[in-house]
Amino acid sequence: MLKDKYFKAFAAYASCNMVLAIAASALCAYIAPAAAGSGIPEVKAYLNGVDAYSILAPSTLFVKIFGSIFGVAGGFVVGKEGPMVHTGACIASLLGQGGSRKYRLTWRWLRYFKNDRDRRDLITCGAAAGVAAAFRAPVGGVLFALEEAASWWRSALLWRTFFTTAVVAVVLRGFIEFCQSGKCGLFGKGGLIMFDVNSSRATYDTPDLLAVILLGVLGGIFGSLYNYFVDKVLRTYSIINEKGPVFKVMLVMAMSLLTSCCSYGLPWLSRCLPCPIVEDQCPTEGRSGNYKNFQCPPGHYNDLASLFLNTNDDAIRNLLSPGTKEFHISTLLVFFAAIFCLGIITYGIAIPSGLFIPVILAGASYGRLVGTFLGSLSNLDAGLFALLGAASFLGGTMRMTVSLCVILLELTNDLLMLPLVMLVLLISKTVADSFNKGVYDQIVKMKGLPYLEAHAEPYMRHLVASQVVSGPLVSFSGVEKVGNILHSLKLTRHNGFPVIDEPPFSDSPELCGLVLRSHLLVLLKGKKFTKLKVLTGLDIMRRFKAQDFAKAGSGKGIKLEDLDITEEEMDMYVDLHPITNTSPYTVVETTSLAKAAVLFRELGLRHMCVVPKTAGRPPIVGILTRHDFMPEHILGTLPRYTLPQVGLLACKHEFNFLPPLYYNEVIIIDICSLIFTIFGFSIFG
Amino acid sequence: MLKDKYFKAFAAYASCNMVLAIAASALCAYIAPAAAGSGIPEVKAYLNGVDAYSILAPSTLFVKIFGSIFGVAGGFVVGKEGPMVHTGACIASLLGQGGSRKYRLTWRWLRYFKNDRDRRDLITCGAAAGVAAAFRAPVGGVLFALEEAASWWRSALLWRTFFTTAVVAVVLRGFIEFCQSGKCGLFGKGGLIMFDVNSSRATYDTPDLLAVILLGVLGGIFGSLYNYFVDKVLRTYSIINEKGPVFKVMLVMAMSLLTSCCSYGLPWLSRCLPCPIVEDQCPTEGRSGNYKNFQCPPGHYNDLASLFLNTNDDAIRNLLSPGTKEFHISTLLVFFAAIFCLGIITYGIAIPSGLFIPVILAGASYGRLVGTFLGSLSNLDAGLFALLGAASFLGGTMRMTVSLCVILLELTNDLLMLPLVMLVLLISKTVADSFNKGVYDQIVKMKGLPYLEAHAEPYMRHLVASQVVSGPLVSFSGVEKVGNILHSLKLTRHNGFPVIDEPPFSDSPELCGLVLRSHLLVLLKGKKFTKLKVLTGLDIMRRFKAQDFAKAGSGKGIKLEDLDITEEEMDMYVDLHPITNTSPYTVVETTSLAKAAVLFRELGLRHMCVVPKTAGRPPIVGILTRHDFMPEHILGTLPRYTLPQVGLLACKHEFNFLPPLYYNEVIIIDICSLIFTIFGFSIFG
Repeated sequence: MLKDKYFKAFAAYASCNMVLAIAASALCAYIAPAAAGSGIPEVKAYLNGVDAYSILAPSTLFVKIFGSIFGVAGGFVVGKEGPMVHTGACIASLLGQGGSRKYRLTWRWLRYFKNDRDRRDLITCGAAAGVAAAFRAPVGGVLFALEEAASWWRSALLWRTFFTTAVVAVVLRGFIEFCQSGKCGLFGKGGLIMFDVNSSRATYDTPDLLAVILLGVLGGIFGSLYNYFVDKVLRTYSIINEKGPVFKVMLVMAMSLLTSCCSYGLPWLSRCLPCPIVEDQCPTEGRSGNYKNFQCPPGHYNDLASLFLNTNDDAIRNLLSPGTKEFHISTLLVFFAAIFCLGIITYGIAIPSGLFIPVILAGASYGRLVGTFLGSLSNLDAGLFALLGAASFLGGTMRMTVSLCVILLELTNDLLMLPLVMLVLLISKTVADSFNKGVYDQIVKMKGLPYLEAHAEPYMRHLVASQVVSGPLVSFSGVEKVGNILHSLKLTRHNGFPVIDEPPFSDSPELCGLVLRSHLLVLLKGKKFTKLKVLTGLDIMRRFKAQDFAKAGSGKGIKLEDLDITEEEMDMYVDLHPITNTSPYTVVETTSLAKAAVLFRELGLRHMCVVPKTAGRPPIVGILTRHDFMPEHILGTLPRYTLPQVGLLACKHEFNFLPPLYYNEVIIIDICSLIFTIFGFSIFG
Repeated sequence: MLKDKYFKAFAAYASCNMVLAIAASALCAYIAPAAAGSGIPEVKAYLNGVDAYSILAPSTLFVKIFGSIFGVAGGFVVGKEGPMVHTGACIASLLGQGGSRKYRLTWRWLRYFKNDRDRRDLITCGAAAGVAAAFRAPVGGVLFALEEAASWWRSALLWRTFFTTAVVAVVLRGFIEFCQSGKCGLFGKGGLIMFDVNSSRATYDTPDLLAVILLGVLGGIFGSLYNYFVDKVLRTYSIINEKGPVFKVMLVMAMSLLTSCCSYGLPWLSRCLPCPIVEDQCPTEGRSGNYKNFQCPPGHYNDLASLFLNTNDDAIRNLLSPGTKEFHISTLLVFFAAIFCLGIITYGIAIPSGLFIPVILAGASYGRLVGTFLGSLSNLDAGLFALLGAASFLGGTMRMTVSLCVILLELTNDLLMLPLVMLVLLISKTVADSFNKGVYDQIVKMKGLPYLEAHAEPYMRHLVASQVVSGPLVSFSGVEKVGNILHSLKLTRHNGFPVIDEPPFSDSPELCGLVLRSHLLVLLKGKKFTKLKVLTGLDIMRRFKAQDFAKAGSGKGIKLEDLDITEEEMDMYVDLHPITNTSPYTVVETTSLAKAAVLFRELGLRHMCVVPKTAGRPPIVGILTRHDFMPEHILGTLPRYTLPQVGLLACKHEFNFLPPLYYNEVIIIDICSLIFTIFGFSIFG
């Protein structure tokens, strides 16, 4: 690096980065493609009920950990926070399915968690622990899990995540204490508070508020732009990535080269600045530090190199440091532009890549830029501007409020800035929300995961449940022929089947309940069949134990191919009553689709039975699943009508002339949000 | 006070207190009895859907504000935090019902909030604002509203409360800035951080953790004891208070005298301590300060008087101050015992009284006591022990976790103590939860408010919906005779009536939907009747506007007595279809009661229709309301069976041999909580 061997230095730097990048991308491309990207959208979708393939598998966990290490070490503009959330969720999932049989890690007592809800709870806790560990922010972790990750929330879950993050905090503190003497390299630098800015006291006046509002608006605009470009880039990359693992690795290599060029080449644009006199550690030679020498003469430092050729943590710490002298305006401008663009084009390549760090870096640099510009006009320190900039950009991309606020508080320990951080977050979120959705929601949608939104869409109010029921209904009789069951299981991919009691077991055909595919497979595997069509409830009770029906790990349940049914057994009967859920949630066919959607979502259902309104028809009209509530499906099933016509049709159907009042129990139209938005705008904008 | 006129001083002190106490209690007893107590349980119940009389009326608001001022000024061991939450909720409710017509404060644009959900949202925001203002803790306010107050939570609500508390924080900061020069007395003392303990750095070792665990266990035990006694005392007081307003005032007077005696008499037990040399403000003569002279010679101070004869805020600040010398062990013991007992017997008298301050005072004093005892054994400062003691006692009484943690963080600005505060809160909550319920839940239950728990009780799994449906069902025909409607409205107090379509309007009797009492009254008031039994849907549409059916303020809707129906009109018909909710949520009569309860609670319903399973019967079996899910009601309707028998009966009925798996959609049994409790205990205890 010294003595003018600049090109050699670059070659060494770039090739180191390249090797690490290839390692990360090879892991990702060949072992676990699901480990690419942030992981937060996947966790979010899982907690919404989307059980996509291998999202939380042990191999994903392995690749996520090492891929993330290689990726961050390889100099990419990526964070480790998102991958840590995914890692936490993977570990929790492993615990939830009782360990991994494949890797011989199983615990018997974990079998109690083998059900949907407990597994979901565990994964929520895991995500919270990930954030708590990544930012050393235990309360922030709880709030992140609540605000961004979880789709359902109970007060019991609140204190469980709190317990988890408390354990994380205590363990972390233990390690940091242990590592204080420098035994573990840079680990634990900064103690429990990563970027302590507490020393710079915040005294702000009303004019400063204007600067803060400006920052908030800028953050909102930049944030929504960022989301827009990330979406476009992701769509482009997904075309490349689909061509095969080799293309994935090549894309990563190209990005690695580009990043190396930027971070090595751009500092040449910056002039050398003389070291401040008070500082005795300038220029810094070690791995970490505020002032990088780069190509400068002794006693000088290159401010751009101090940002580029540094750990991400140190770069953030530099940006948040007080004083306006340290970085030149052009430096900040170059850094912001580079990080903004690199962040956009890096996300989506086949390495585990978090979004937090790029966003914080870009936000802090433009915040500091604004602060340096306004220098004399505002009382606020440039470091505080950098913090507010980071907050506004985070708010603009991720659209979280409370959790970001607490995470930033725990990162910087600056309680007096809290009102300003809150304001800036709200403004940037409001501004950005008027352009597009949050970045994680966008990614979930782009990946085509059937994510159920918390609120029903307005057009759903004009439809009724029976209008969107799809496909031929496959139902079983209370005591059904084994052959029929097997045939239906083979022919369809449904996971729930209605069971209908028919004479002689009831007076007229009536809905007995719902039976799950996984339970049917266990029952068939048990081979408790009878020659005649009779009830055998108690017999079967002796044959099976409750845990036989426990939810297996993903991909580990009994498969249809595992069954070995003889021709003779095909003609025998099996009593489905014992495994039937006799209290499925039902809606009448004329129920408004909006209300059905609210029921489906709020109770976290997977199947909902639609029953007929009038007597004398089959006792079930159809089954609604998650996919039936997706806009694409609904608009697909109603090709003949344009939406306004559907509206009129349904209005006549329901005498629905009072839309907002009509849903007097759960009101769907959100007038309040309208008012709040207008109100919010008139205050802020 | 000087020159030995001790008795005169006491008389002056006690009579001042007495006058203030009488003022507070007279307001409470004669104007708004609902304003007595903390108000948090009432707000909690309201947000759960219990619309009790005058809980949020303008008169309650008025009394709450002034009663709280008089009560706190009168020297009672009560806080202003609970009343501030109630105040916030009252103001929000006033906005939500479009102002008060009685007091001529109305705004037209507020009419958009005239529905259940928006009003509930507003009141949640109000409660959050109350906490934010009381503790100057904006994030804590959001979390309090989330964890303790609200029963339903949506992410939209999260950022609305966040917006509210951000505004509170900015306004508060403005006032504090304005008042810094001392223009407003003691207002804003301490700035945005009320009890800043940031100066004392926290360095703790593993042995300190043992002390912290001890504090947590003690806090749990004391907290559950506190709750137990508060409950007993409340039951006793409610007998006295029922005798009339005069008795209420007399009870308050007695309590005032007792409190005055304690706070004036007990300091005599303490010896005079010499002032520390470094301190130049000792003894303090002003209204606020650390060292009270009391009866001591100059240059000395009475440590017990510094706690008793001080504002509550200053007493807490004293207890949290660093150093072990300032307070003697006996002083802390006496103060703790006095505050603990006074706190218990003060809550429940007819003044607005918060629980936070007494609990924090008692907790901080025993925490400091433990700290002083352990003095040499622990590295932790006695002030930090006081903080942890307050945390443990708060956790033991109120059973909140995240919100208390953040409130304490925002009160004290001590981020490094966060892991310890989290631990202590979890331990005390876990210990106390094994004895009884949280203090607010206890009060809600004692007041007989029909609070719906978040989870269904285990015995509900053995019952079906039709077993608890009560009372004779009153239903209307689709086009009903006016006289019949009037008769039914007079005879019953139901708020929802099923509407059944009969021939000739349908082929067979079928359930059309649900109509609300309030909407019926509006319809009858409009007098759009017909001589013949015909559909008049469109006609009625022209007669009414949507806002005519908006939810009126409590006690402000049309009453039955307001109607003026002639004999002739009694025989006419009215078409109920336009005001019928044609998509009421329904359950089949054989649905497990537990699942019905989950549906009812999660969707926030007021009425749920129970429909028959088999054809050929009337299309509705009954209506379930909130009261039908109360344990008293359920156990009352099944007098012939003891519970195990009911269980067997239902098991046979439902083929339910797999309890935990049976509810494969929403699993009711909470195995996870069991594991967590055991796990928690084995770690902590």
